[in-house]
Amino acid sequence: MQAWKTYQEKNKDRFLQELLELLRIPSVSADSRHREDTRRCAEAVKKRLLEAGADKAEICPTAGHPIVYAEKIIGPGHPTILVYGHYDVQPPDPLDLWHSGPFEPVIKDGRIYARGACDDKGQFYMHVKAFETLVQTQTLSCNVKFMIEGEEEVGSESLPDFLRQNKEKLQTDIVLISDTSMLSMEHPSLETGLRGLAYMEVEVSGPNRDLHSGVYGGAVANPATVLCQLIASLHDENNRITIPGFYDEVAELSAAERAALNKAPFDAEAYKEDLGIKALWGEKGYTTLERTGIRPTLEVNGIWGGYTAEGAKTVLPAKAHAKISMRLVPNQTSHTIEKLFTDHFNHIAPEGVTVKVKALHGGEPAVTPVDSVAYRAAGKAIETTFGKEPIPTRGGGSIPIVALFEEVLKTKSVLMGFGLDNDNLHSPNEKFDLFNYYKGIETIPYFHRYFAEMSKEG
Amino acid sequence: MQAWKTYQEKNKDRFLQELLELLRIPSVSADSRHREDTRRCAEAVKKRLLEAGADKAEICPTAGHPIVYAEKIIGPGHPTILVYGHYDVQPPDPLDLWHSGPFEPVIKDGRIYARGACDDKGQFYMHVKAFETLVQTQTLSCNVKFMIEGEEEVGSESLPDFLRQNKEKLQTDIVLISDTSMLSMEHPSLETGLRGLAYMEVEVSGPNRDLHSGVYGGAVANPATVLCQLIASLHDENNRITIPGFYDEVAELSAAERAALNKAPFDAEAYKEDLGIKALWGEKGYTTLERTGIRPTLEVNGIWGGYTAEGAKTVLPAKAHAKISMRLVPNQTSHTIEKLFTDHFNHIAPEGVTVKVKALHGGEPAVTPVDSVAYRAAGKAIETTFGKEPIPTRGGGSIPIVALFEEVLKTKSVLMGFGLDNDNLHSPNEKFDLFNYYKGIETIPYFHRYFAEMSKEG
Repeated sequence: MQAWKTYQEKNKDRFLQELLELLRIPSVSADSRHREDTRRCAEAVKKRLLEAGADKAEICPTAGHPIVYAEKIIGPGHPTILVYGHYDVQPPDPLDLWHSGPFEPVIKDGRIYARGACDDKGQFYMHVKAFETLVQTQTLSCNVKFMIEGEEEVGSESLPDFLRQNKEKLQTDIVLISDTSMLSMEHPSLETGLRGLAYMEVEVSGPNRDLHSGVYGGAVANPATVLCQLIASLHDENNRITIPGFYDEVAELSAAERAALNKAPFDAEAYKEDLGIKALWGEKGYTTLERTGIRPTLEVNGIWGGYTAEGAKTVLPAKAHAKISMRLVPNQTSHTIEKLFTDHFNHIAPEGVTVKVKALHGGEPAVTPVDSVAYRAAGKAIETTFGKEPIPTRGGGSIPIVALFEEVLKTKSVLMGFGLDNDNLHSPNEKFDLFNYYKGIETIPYFHRYFAEMSKEG
Repeated sequence: MQAWKTYQEKNKDRFLQELLELLRIPSVSADSRHREDTRRCAEAVKKRLLEAGADKAEICPTAGHPIVYAEKIIGPGHPTILVYGHYDVQPPDPLDLWHSGPFEPVIKDGRIYARGACDDKGQFYMHVKAFETLVQTQTLSCNVKFMIEGEEEVGSESLPDFLRQNKEKLQTDIVLISDTSMLSMEHPSLETGLRGLAYMEVEVSGPNRDLHSGVYGGAVANPATVLCQLIASLHDENNRITIPGFYDEVAELSAAERAALNKAPFDAEAYKEDLGIKALWGEKGYTTLERTGIRPTLEVNGIWGGYTAEGAKTVLPAKAHAKISMRLVPNQTSHTIEKLFTDHFNHIAPEGVTVKVKALHGGEPAVTPVDSVAYRAAGKAIETTFGKEPIPTRGGGSIPIVALFEEVLKTKSVLMGFGLDNDNLHSPNEKFDLFNYYKGIETIPYFHRYFAEMSKEG
């Protein structure tokens, strides 16, 4: 649409400056020292939604960080789109690996570098600016609702209650989410599914105090050694997970589905070079795309115990800890996997140590039917602005709330992500390409239009 | 000897007051803010050695803290004893756990509470007072040399050069050291050996940055998981160390020697209760006393990698680290073991990760032959004052300088310690029992006498 293009061209710079402002707010939900910043970020989001054209916007308090809700209702005859996103970000550490301050966004080589640039401030803000474009050009064809939360990076703990308490208000025909990646700008893609998550923390305790490793070494089970042995035993020689029953509920894809999935362009050499690794790794019998898309995994996210400072201290540590998370695929459920993991970990712990297992948070896997109106509308919108049909992909990450929307709101989600796998999400030097940011703002209005048209056709 | 008893009875209080004075000097070698105190402590030791009857005493400067040397030579016909000790102490922190100031010694329930009370001021000063007793009662039967250093708690870095540069001056028939413990006053014991040490640090590197465990999990080798697998593989199901060649040089004890070693009273239930563990652990086929005394061990002293703070961060870490140390027994050498460990660790590292191995520091194991003149003299001295033959024990810890004396001075050492395992060495509220202090002063002169007599008999 020429009107959209003109309006967006005219406001290009402001669209960027507004995002940079948001990125300057260190809304780290995991860190209580940033509680006030997080609150401040919510206020900023509310203000921008009103400026963009929302009839009303509000900050909804929760047990944790607040949820920003806004809407513009144009009438019952029109389909409703609920835009979900999150204004909270991951902790920035390790700080020393950043080339510039995580909360001092800089533009370099056409990229925005900052924590949250892509995940998810940059991506949800595309929707705010696309919405503004539609409002300002009087071309809004759907009712629009925004729900931008502040706890996605810590497990969206307040969201389930919020959804249940606001079912009516949140009624929608589709949930639209941009919190995922495309294969590349040359190979636009659309996620058809996401993995679930079961995130655990384990503690192995041995002696009641740190011991002198000379005096007691060799006579007392070492919690750090035992923890390593337990973790090592969780994968077999084919890199399959050894937890009994772990794969019982896994939905195996048909040969055709696997073939379609593997149509996605994948350059193993480029992939290895980008990561600086000499070899790929993973479950035997599956491709990398399958390993990250349709197969469940188990990763150590963190491990610590004993003396970790400079030099040599001959201590036999009293405790050792690890954070271990599993990615789940249909039809696994986080509760079942948490229980299987806990039972197994307790079962394999040798005598002489005590094991504590705690589930930190979980989310369910989800899929989007490719034949749905919303999926087709998203595909067509991307085809319009990219000149290419998107490739259906399975996302390795987890957006647990997608399954939650299905359960509570009885609504499917469309995952129209504009990020790239090398955006360094959760890592130092997170970035978002300006091209992608603007491409998203350009594409989203088409989704509104096609979704409205196709919904009428039914 | 009645004369000794009388003299020591008469000077009992002064012997204690002089020790307390030494304990008031915060000679913390690790802390440069105490450099002057350390220097002052050396001066005080020199002064006391002269008062005790040394012909000469000097403060020998080193690259680090000075070494106090003193001697009394009564003639070539007599054997020579070199007393080794250290006047430096461990840092006192955590200060808040002390019941009284670490450098304000107090006597409570017949114990001296102060940093250095046992390790090693209290123990080396027994030798100064025993020496005084012999001189004052005209019963000195050996040439005596004292070498009291100020860097034992920081690795005795200046000692090797000092020994090499003063070989002649330090010529001796035996090195006598009181820097270890007895089983108890009811069960006097004598150390017959110490374990060596090879302390390593390893780094496992995978991708060139921390990755999102959802996007990359399952497709890239996880350095934390790999580190666990490598560490787990270092012990087999019998808790034997799997490094090829690791046991090749281990001197197996004879059945008789093992039997003697196991004569030491050991209460497994009390041991477990003290440590708060439900089961013992260790190399199959050996007792706890053997596992901590005559067998080499491998312990994880520290491990770290990935996200270790509060909450859940779904990261696949770029690196993981561990500190791993091995206790060595005769005839293992730290250099050989460091090399075997390094080669093995590099060998078992899977492709997809890079491994770096660094040796942080090492020390050699040492034994005192129980049939040597010096050992028999020490045993007889203890039997005389305790009324019981000492139980031969193997210390699990390491005193690297013992091996150094063998290498440079070609002299064995006798480890006649009068401390107890619960003296809180290196911990808050370090103490030394008055009974042990005086018992040491009473026993040492007998060692001089028996050593002189037995040396003549040959």
